[in-house]
This record gives sequence, C-alpha cells and structure tokens, in this order.
Amino acid sequence: MKTRIYNAKIITMANGTDILEGELHIEDDRISFVGTREDAKKLLKETVFDREIDACGNVVMPGFKDAHTHSAMTFLRSYADDLPLQEWLYNRVFPMEAKLTEEDVLWCSKLAIMEYLTSGITANFDMYMKNEANAKASVDTGFRTVLCGSINDFGGTVEGIEEEYKHFNNYDKLLSYQIGFHAEYTTKRETLEGIAELAHKYKAPVYTHNSETKSEVDGCIERYGKTPTAFLDSIGMFDYGGGGFHCVHMTDEDLDICKEKKIWVVTNPASNVKLASGIAPIKKMLDIGIGLAIGTDGPASNNCLDMFREMFLTTALQKVSIPDASAVDANDVLYMATVGGAHAMGLMDCDTLEKGKYADLIIIDLNQPNMQPLNNISKNIVYSGSKQNVKLTMVAGKVLYEDGKFNIGIAPEEIYEKANESIVRMKA
Amino acid sequence: MKTRIYNAKIITMANGTDILEGELHIEDDRISFVGTREDAKKLLKETVFDREIDACGNVVMPGFKDAHTHSAMTFLRSYADDLPLQEWLYNRVFPMEAKLTEEDVLWCSKLAIMEYLTSGITANFDMYMKNEANAKASVDTGFRTVLCGSINDFGGTVEGIEEEYKHFNNYDKLLSYQIGFHAEYTTKRETLEGIAELAHKYKAPVYTHNSETKSEVDGCIERYGKTPTAFLDSIGMFDYGGGGFHCVHMTDEDLDICKEKKIWVVTNPASNVKLASGIAPIKKMLDIGIGLAIGTDGPASNNCLDMFREMFLTTALQKVSIPDASAVDANDVLYMATVGGAHAMGLMDCDTLEKGKYADLIIIDLNQPNMQPLNNISKNIVYSGSKQNVKLTMVAGKVLYEDGKFNIGIAPEEIYEKANESIVRMKA
Repeated sequence: MKTRIYNAKIITMANGTDILEGELHIEDDRISFVGTREDAKKLLKETVFDREIDACGNVVMPGFKDAHTHSAMTFLRSYADDLPLQEWLYNRVFPMEAKLTEEDVLWCSKLAIMEYLTSGITANFDMYMKNEANAKASVDTGFRTVLCGSINDFGGTVEGIEEEYKHFNNYDKLLSYQIGFHAEYTTKRETLEGIAELAHKYKAPVYTHNSETKSEVDGCIERYGKTPTAFLDSIGMFDYGGGGFHCVHMTDEDLDICKEKKIWVVTNPASNVKLASGIAPIKKMLDIGIGLAIGTDGPASNNCLDMFREMFLTTALQKVSIPDASAVDANDVLYMATVGGAHAMGLMDCDTLEKGKYADLIIIDLNQPNMQPLNNISKNIVYSGSKQNVKLTMVAGKVLYEDGKFNIGIAPEEIYEKANESIVRMKA
Repeated sequence: MKTRIYNAKIITMANGTDILEGELHIEDDRISFVGTREDAKKLLKETVFDREIDACGNVVMPGFKDAHTHSAMTFLRSYADDLPLQEWLYNRVFPMEAKLTEEDVLWCSKLAIMEYLTSGITANFDMYMKNEANAKASVDTGFRTVLCGSINDFGGTVEGIEEEYKHFNNYDKLLSYQIGFHAEYTTKRETLEGIAELAHKYKAPVYTHNSETKSEVDGCIERYGKTPTAFLDSIGMFDYGGGGFHCVHMTDEDLDICKEKKIWVVTNPASNVKLASGIAPIKKMLDIGIGLAIGTDGPASNNCLDMFREMFLTTALQKVSIPDASAVDANDVLYMATVGGAHAMGLMDCDTLEKGKYADLIIIDLNQPNMQPLNNISKNIVYSGSKQNVKLTMVAGKVLYEDGKFNIGIAPEEIYEKANESIVRMKA
C-alpha cells in the first residue's frame, strides 16, 4: 500500500516546529519520503500510489501521544462529577469498576479509541485492568497502544506483570507493554521491591502514578520517611528509567532524581484541576531538563480525551500559578504532546515525521476560523486548536479517521450501544 | 418562515438542565412552540413548515452567550504569545491596533463571528473600537451583538457614548448597546463621573473591565483609597446595575457591592490564566448569589472563542484553587453560559427556549465519542463538549452554521483572505 500526502505544511517535529512545504510518502506502515515537491519529482515519476491525499495546504504533523490514560473508564464519563475526591473514588468509581467484565472493557476501550482519533491522538499509554480486552480493542481498531502494568495490593502479582511483559511485547506490531504498578500508596513494600527486581532483570523502565495528591506524599513520608519519588528510587525502582504520572506535589530533590534517573514526567493537567489535586511544576521541570509528556488521564476524572485541552492547560496553568505570562512556550508544549510522549512510552519510531518512522500522523485543518489568520501556525494549534480541526488521523499508515468518519472496522453506533448497555447493567 | 425541529432532547434552561423529549417550532425569528410530540399533534396538522429538521435525538439548547469579547482582535491571534503582560500589551498589541482601519475591524469581526458560530455562541458582548464596523459585521452575517461602550483617556468622549447609545439601540433587531468604559485605570475621574451621570440620565447599567490584575487594584487604592468596585460605586456608577469583566482580584466588600447593586460578574478564565492575571473567586460569588456570566475575552489573549474551554475552566479552576473537587457544579456553569450571559448583557428574550423567546439556539451532536455514554448529558456538555459537537447554530430563527458549513452571506475563504491581508499590511 503506497500513499502520498501532498500540498502540505509539514511540521516534522524533527526541527522544532519548523514548517516544511511539501509532501510525504508512505509505504505500508512507514514513511518513505518527506520533502519538498521539487525533491519528490523523481519519486513521483517512478511510483504508482494507491491513494493520493491533497492536504489542501493544511498541516501534516505527528499524531499526539496520550502518555497516561485509563481508556475503558469511558463508562464512568459524567457519572460522578462535582464530588469530593474520596466520595468520587470510593462510593462511585470503585463499586462500578467491581462489576466490570472483559466485554465491558473491550467496548469501552473502543469508545475511547474513537475519541482519541477525533483528537488527533495516534497512541495511548494505557493503565487499566483486563489487558487482554484492552489489547484486543487496539488491534481490532488498528490503534497503537502501549499497555502499562498496574498491579497493587488489590489485584495482580509481580509474576503476572512479568507474564504480561513477555506476552504483550510479542503480541502485535501495534502493541507494546511497559512494567508498571498503580502507586506507592496502594502497593506494599514487598511487591514494590519485586517490581524493582523485575526492572533489573529486564533492564526496563518502570511507570507509576506518582505524587498526584498531597495526602499521598504525606502518607509515604510517614511510612518511609521519604517522598514517593525518593523512596521508590531508594529501592532501585528507576535504575533503568521510567515515568511518573501526574507528579503534582514534587520537591526539588524529587526533580533532581527525575533528571538524574531519566524518569519521564507525564502531566495530566485537566484531571489535576478537576479533581482539585493541584498544579504540577512543569516550568521548573522544563528548566532543569526533565523529559516531559502529556496525558489526558481517564474519562472518569477529566472527562474527555482531548489533547488540545491538555496542551492549553499545560502552559496556561504554569502562567497563572507562577505567575508569569511568558512561562512554558507553546512550542515546548507541542513537543511534549508529540515527541516527548512517544519517547516517554518507549515509541522511538513514532515520534517525528522522518523517513523510516511509522506513519502515525494527523492533518490539522487550517481552513477553520479558529486557525486564522496564520500569524503563527504552531501557536494556533496549541492555543486555539480543537477537535474540529482534526481532518485526518492515520496510525501505522492506515487512515482510521477522516472528515468525521471512522474506519475502525465497526460502526460507531454499535460501540455507543454496547457502552450504554454496559452502564445500564452495572447501574442495575 | 416556519421551521420545525423534532426528535430532540430539549434543554430549555427554563427548568435547570432538565431535558424535554420533543420538538420546537419557530415562526420567523421567535419560538412559537416547545413541547412533546404529543402536545404538538394539533399544530402539526395545521401548520405547513418551510423546513423540518430532524434533530436525530440530539440536544437542542439555547445558544451560548459570550458575555465579554473583543471580536476584531482575531487579527492578533497567536501574534504575541508567551510574553510578559506589559510587553504583550505595549510592544505588541497597542502598536498593531494603532494601524487598524474600519475595514480591518469589519473583516476581523466577521472572522470572530464565524468562530462564535462553530462554538455554539449565538450572541456576543463586544467591547472594541470602530463600532460602525462591528455593527455592520453582525448585521451582515445575521449574528446578534450587544456593543459595549469602551472609552478611556486615549479615545472617546462621554458625548460619544451617549450618541452611540441612542444610535445602536435603534439600528437593527440584532443589535443593542450598553454604556461602558475601558477601565478605571485608563480613565480619568472626570470622565468616569460623566459616565455615571449618563447612566443616571438613562437609568442604565454600566459595564467595564474590573480588577483584572492585582496592579490595577493597587493603583486604584493608591489613587482613591478604594478598590475599583468600591470607588466606582461611590461615584454612583452602578446605581442602575451593570457588570464587571474579569473581576479576578475582588475583596469581600467588592462582592457585597456586586450583590447589592446587581453588578454582573463576567468571568474570562482562559484569558486570566494565559495572561497570568489570576483566578476569580467564582465559587464565593455563586454562593452569595451574584449574577454570573462567561466570556472568552479577545483572541489576542485567549486565543480562541471557545465556550467549551471557558465552561470547563470556570468550574475546574475553582476546584483546584480552593481546593475542592465539588466546587461549582457543571449545571451552574451551563446556566452562566446561557441564561446568565443573556441577562448580563440585557438580552432578556434570548435566554431560554420558551414560546415567544428569540430562536437563538444550537444543536449539540451526541453521536460523537466524547458525548458517550449518556450518563449525564448536561455534564457531558460542560466537561467533555467541544466545537466538533456543534451541529447547528441558529440566530433569530436563521440557521447560520450547520454541519461545518456557514450561511453568513459570504464565503469563509474570502474572510480568511481579508483577515490575512490586514495582518500583512499592519506588520509591514
């Protein structure tokens, strides 16, 4: 399958947010050419394309990477809002999750994948239960997912994580798996030490929820005399790197550890404000050179899977909390949402639009009022962008979403119906 | 012209966010019927409709009211981001505004109107210069605008405001005008007293930027020994009510004055975070019963005209800053964005969907992944809604936007071209 996208403003993200006017060729699932029309001339003579897409002067750029999600939690969207955090979690989320079946997870994950596609997201880093169903949802629809281990004292074992690690890293080219656990405060020391050992065995990074709330940090200090970051590091958890989701309440020492141990910080600003968790010190992290990525968190907390909202908040919340209107340039945010996210989850071939990389890309419609005038295209995307600007979303060379229509092997209405059926059954 | 919208979930906003399954009829510019299909039976036999719209089970609700904007500032979108506030204003905004012509304002306002329509906004409260051009942009496109006086020491007179007040309140059924001035800190006392006199003469409310930044409040205390709210109130400015835009740095005494004098607070959360101004105490205002509305502010600061973003921020910023995840219920926010906004700007006939009211309404597409499952439709709209959910926007009975297409008497491309030409000329 050979595809050509021409007449495009290409933000490859290989050179900041520079724009290359030209075209991009795809052979099967990878990019075979990126360059000007002039440079493409010879190839155009030699190649017969299966499809040629006129980008009409619009932006072609790498798809966004949603670096922390709980996809299947779509079933809890708008089910428990405007409640105190503990009530939300213990009286609403947990009792419903207890009723969740594999089938529910399959359909609710497919619903999430539809929403990722509308938001220009081409891969997610998913931490949830019933991973066979999560994996199937991605492979069935053609979406790219990195699964994240999520054990804690309520479910899962270190042996289970090892099995998943081997299983899902040899499952499908769209799927990979990283070692992870839910959080320090839900996982006993013995298990945490087991995970650290596993990380050493495979020389692998480890991912977890980290310092999302102040009470979580206080609890860890009480238990171990250290912050979660410092404690986990002290037992060798991050000797091969890894990542922390949220990272709202971080000390300067925590940040030094992240920098030294190459621990990615995945920020989830919409979830952190809606659940009243706080504002992560992204500007400080950026200044000292910590790797940064952006995630939406799950639809139970956020409530939507919208990278445009997250990008705006990633910079705007820094500006207001410091306060400094110049804090965290939009172009840095665009990097976090694309290249940063890809590298955070270990997708080294899905980061930029360069020859040999996977064709995980989107077309952003500039012929919309919110993208005009064209003073600064990348800042338009970060500060004004919205789902209605996503004209096309392609994963591994396959168009999964285009002009509001899905190409994921199943009708949207069927997914909506199944998700609503799940909810009705669980509420009963 | 008779229009019928059927098969709808109608949120009239006359009874909180209750949903009425049924239909809505429009005769010319006003609503002639809202009710169940059963109740419509007799009317359906008697009436020949010019157009019947199948809402396909989607939501029909009042259009959003953007209660504080500077429409024509679209020309500065993404022109001056990530800069300190003073540099942004004095080195970027003011020099460009000095070059602005009537023609620029006309086209750049039309561009803003397009964006309002994509966001389900059916009326704006516009504070800017060259009001003849602003008025023409609205009437030409069929959009509803309330103009707001905007004099300060750099331009305009009290007499000019009075002339505009008489002129624009008898201009077109889509247009009205409220007395206003830029801000206390840009307007000398003599002028402010003249505006207060004018308000008394016409028994009219007065609107202004109020306490947007801390330095503005400190300056007023230095000049007059009072906060802007208290000082302006002391010279009789709000004896017939009015409104304050932003209202970020408000004392408890200020809030008492707002409550007592029926001064609307129009919050602009995206602008306030992006420009590092602060977070307005909306929860407190709501608790004591101050009238609340929501505005986007202009595209130079925000950078987009997106009521979905503003609604999310209106509640989420309260949650994180208090901190309390239960602060400011989404249904209160939906009220602010519709009924509150209409009342704040004096549009008493554009607030709810009831017989006799203007047909200023929108259809929200529920058949999108971000609106599923249907646990709670109004919360879906506030927490997950996005421009891509706006299926149709109608102002005064006329469909101006539907399924991504504009019906505003001119091609979008022509507006984009003119706006870009303006920018090129001004930058030269």
